[in-house]
Parts: sequence; C-alpha cells; structure tokens
Amino acid sequence: MSGKQIIISEVGARDGLQTQPVQVSTADKIRMLYALSATGLRRIEVTSFVHPKIVPQMADAEDVLAGMHRAPGVRYAAFVPNIKGAERALAARVEDFKSGVAVSETFNSLNVRMSTGQAMQAFADISAFAKGTSSQVVGVLGTAFGCPYEGDMPVERCLPLIEVMVEGCAKLIYFADTTGMANPGSIARLVEAAQKRWPEINFGLHLHNTRGLGLANALAGLERGVTDFESSIGGMGGCPYAPLAVGNICTEDFVHMLHGMGYETALDLDALIAAARLTETILGAKLPGMVLRAGKASELHDAEKKRDKAPA
Amino acid sequence: MSGKQIIISEVGARDGLQTQPVQVSTADKIRMLYALSATGLRRIEVTSFVHPKIVPQMADAEDVLAGMHRAPGVRYAAFVPNIKGAERALAARVEDFKSGVAVSETFNSLNVRMSTGQAMQAFADISAFAKGTSSQVVGVLGTAFGCPYEGDMPVERCLPLIEVMVEGCAKLIYFADTTGMANPGSIARLVEAAQKRWPEINFGLHLHNTRGLGLANALAGLERGVTDFESSIGGMGGCPYAPLAVGNICTEDFVHMLHGMGYETALDLDALIAAARLTETILGAKLPGMVLRAGKASELHDAEKKRDKAPA
Repeated sequence: MSGKQIIISEVGARDGLQTQPVQVSTADKIRMLYALSATGLRRIEVTSFVHPKIVPQMADAEDVLAGMHRAPGVRYAAFVPNIKGAERALAARVEDFKSGVAVSETFNSLNVRMSTGQAMQAFADISAFAKGTSSQVVGVLGTAFGCPYEGDMPVERCLPLIEVMVEGCAKLIYFADTTGMANPGSIARLVEAAQKRWPEINFGLHLHNTRGLGLANALAGLERGVTDFESSIGGMGGCPYAPLAVGNICTEDFVHMLHGMGYETALDLDALIAAARLTETILGAKLPGMVLRAGKASELHDAEKKRDKAPA
Repeated sequence: MSGKQIIISEVGARDGLQTQPVQVSTADKIRMLYALSATGLRRIEVTSFVHPKIVPQMADAEDVLAGMHRAPGVRYAAFVPNIKGAERALAARVEDFKSGVAVSETFNSLNVRMSTGQAMQAFADISAFAKGTSSQVVGVLGTAFGCPYEGDMPVERCLPLIEVMVEGCAKLIYFADTTGMANPGSIARLVEAAQKRWPEINFGLHLHNTRGLGLANALAGLERGVTDFESSIGGMGGCPYAPLAVGNICTEDFVHMLHGMGYETALDLDALIAAARLTETILGAKLPGMVLRAGKASELHDAEKKRDKAPA
C-alpha cells in the first residue's frame, strides 16, 4: 500500500511474559527468542532491567541476554526504567534502551514509583548515558491515549513529554496505549499532531487489544504513514499495574492483516505462527491470537469433506 | 465523525444462536429479544425460515415471532432462503426478508444446496413475492470477500450478483464476510466499486472477527461512508457450513468503538452490555465480547486500591 516497509518490534518476551502467571525458565525464554529471531523480525525486546522484587519474571535479564543467540540484522532491546537499569543493559550488550514516561501522573507513581517529573528526569539521564555508547534510546510514551485511573489523555498533555524525548535524542518514539483505551479517532489526533510538529521523528504505536480495537487502531496508524509498531507473539501481554489490560496486539494476526493488504514486512508469517505455537507449549496455555486458531485466510478447506458431514 | 447515524442490525438471535452447541428454548430467545429491543436497536434479526432438519436451532421460528414483544420503531427481520421461507416469514409478520446469494458456487451448494444460478433465482422469486406485501427484501451477498473452499472473491465476480439484487429492488444490501477472510483493503475495493456503480443503494457490511480483523474492517467501511452494519451481541456466531468461522463482530464492542470515535448510534451501550450478559446466562457460556470483560474505556479504576496491592 504505502510502499514503505512496516517494521514490527516484538515485545512478547518482555511485555508478554512479565504478566504470565507462570515463571518461564531462562532456557525457555532463550528458545522463544531463538524462534522469534528466525522470523525476519529486526527488533526484538528481550527483557527489562527492573528490580527483581517488582517484576520477578524479569530477574534473569542478564542470563537471558548472555545465553541467547543473536541473529545478524536484529536489534535487541530491553526496557530500562532508570540509570541503574541502563548500566545493566549496556553491560549485557543491549542495543536499544526502551525508556518510558507515562502521561498520567497516577500511572507513573504506580508503575515506576516516580512522579512524571522524576520519570522525565530518568529519561533524560538514560538518554545522556546512552550518548556515550553504541546503544540508542527508544522512547515510549505510556498511557498516551488514556489512563485507567485518570481517564482520557488530551494531546496537549502528551506534547511536552514528547518534546523531552525528542530533546533526549530519541529518533523513534512509540505512543503506547498501555491499557487498551485508544480508538481510531484518538490515534489519529495524537499521531497527526506529533508528525506535524516533529516531521523528522519516527512515531510508532504500541497497541493493546483490551477492548477489541487493536487492529482497528493499527489501521488508523497505517493510514497516517506510521511504519513502526510493537506487538506480541500470540497476543500475550498486559501490564502488572494496568487493571484488565490483557493483550498486546498479536504479532501474527497483525502481520496476517498487513500481508493481506499488500504491505511489505519481510516477515515469514508461518515462522511467526510456529513461534506462537512454541510459546503456547512453553506456557502450557492457549494464547489469544486468532490466526493461530482459524488459520490464514489463504488456507483453503476441502469442500468434499464438509459435504460428507452435512446433515441429511 | 461523518454526521450520519450508524445503524446496527443485530443478528445474534439468528446468526449467533444457530451455531451454539446448546439448543436455546423459545422462552429464552424471547427474553433475549426483549432485552435487545430495549437498547435502541432499530433492526433485529429474529430467526431464519429454513428447514428444521438443516438448522434445528431455528425450528421454532413461528413460535418466537408469535410470542415476542414487538417494540415500536424496531424492524424485525428473518433469513429466508426460498419462497416457502418467505411465505412462512410473511405469515409470521416479519418486516425484512434477508435473502442471500453467496458469490462462491461451492459455498452455495453447501450452505443452501443450490447452484449460484438457482440461489439468484430464489432471490428474484422472494423479491417478486415481497413486492405485493408490506415486507421488504434486504440483500445479503455471502462470501463477498472470500470463500474457505474457493479462496478470494474478486470484485468482478461480486458485481453481477449485486446487479440481480438491485434489480430485485433491494435498497439495502449487506456484503458478508461470511468466514472472516476480508481485510481493510478488500473491504475498500468492493465497497468503493459498488458505491460508484449504484450510488442510490445503501451498501452495508456483515463482518466476522475470525482472524481478529472485524473492527478494522468495520473502520474501513466507516471511512467510506458505510452506515449499515450487522453484528452480534457478545460476538456470538459463525456459520454451520464455514469451517472455523467463529464470531460475528461483537455489537457492544463495535458500539463502544463508535461512541469513542464520536459517531451517533442512538444506542444505549450499557443496555447492550446487559443484553450480552443475559445471553451469557442463557447459554451458560462465556462469549468472546471484550468490553464485557474489560469494561468501557470510560470506566475508571481506583488507584488507591491498586496501590494497596502493589508489591513491596
């Protein structure tokens, strides 16, 4: 459609696993990342460098990064909330530091135990730290379309925080619908305002399917030229501080839509579906991805088999 | 957004119930229709007049229509596959005869045991029959975006069948993504081609969420001025002859999106959610609707409660 390739950042190993009821072993995380690295993905979020007491599922961050295979051409990312996290991430050879600030004051206080001002300062510190290294900072603007505690987040509240990220030299900034409150209208408003003000910056979308709107919101972004999206294999995910925020948009469902519409992704959809199946096996649970269950639209069925089963 | 009101035709009592594993009693269907009639819906599909051996769940069509309350301002519809069905529907005081032809020859042979030519003749017969009555024919073009046995359905294969429906005096024709194979691109191609050729006809969309694309496809329609949509309370539905075609788009999830975007519907979202809960109670099963689980985006949570539960 647009001619530009759509770049997916896979966040299942971090945003997906951190909310799973089971603790996934380091070895299984490495297996999952190996499968994801063989799908054509060029951005994979591996883990987060947060305090293990806060998110125990990510306590093995260094071990995962030390043990995993690094495929050529893939940028491996980690979520870092503060300078200590950035130091650990650099030592573990993380290429992209995902660093975020939520627009909502309440959400920052619950999610990272900082005020919005403190979170902005942490972002600036991490950015300054990254400048002297080979790693880059990628900005994540959390609760950009609404907060479950504070409600709607008007564009005017988002712009000053985006400015801090732009000043911090982030070239790629994801707008995160952390708890699935966006709709195609609110996506359009924020994306258009940011693109107009900072045409040199790449604005991406991190979407959740909490209320069934994930791919409709992605479409609203695509129609405005957004090329960067975060999604999670099998639709795993959520947020430990976001009530009912189940489900990032599902990577393979989104790629299935993109390919159906003629977008280029350089991704192998069958390999993504296989990675989702592996993830289900590792978790011992069904994931919400729908192509996993229904198959691709291009997979045809045998009418004769159906005819045999038809009622008399 | 568009200024025009979006009109939803609720198909849960027909398309939803016909594929449920449990047989719902006539009394429970009447309860469900009573709840739906109190939501502001102006089009409700009640049942289908097919042979009870083919779809046993709809064997009580006459009893449901005779026993149910008819709310003022609501048009009650039934699916009729042939002239015998139309005669039964008229006797039962059905106002809209939904009559369909699938674009796919194979699908027609499996679904209604007719060739496409025979199905078109049946549509013409039903249309001629309706002309002498106070009832109207509403056209449904099945498998308009793909057939699970034959694959993609190009626009050129759809147009001649739409022409038959237009000649049969259908003023409203739904394009049905019977098995969830559409994407926003294929929706755009068919809707634009039909609107261009027959600007006087109202083209609507009947969508399934089989592969997670339901609301993205609805958005593609909305953006092209489509105002008529079919959906199912709680996201119930499918098709007995469509492998894995689980799930019409969910009425309350769609209305939640429309209201979030500022579209007018004249529908009471809370009443729709209550009707979905009643339907879950009747079925004794969870339905796939997501707002049912997550709540409306406008429903805020108490941060203090979350803070109390935060890990140390």
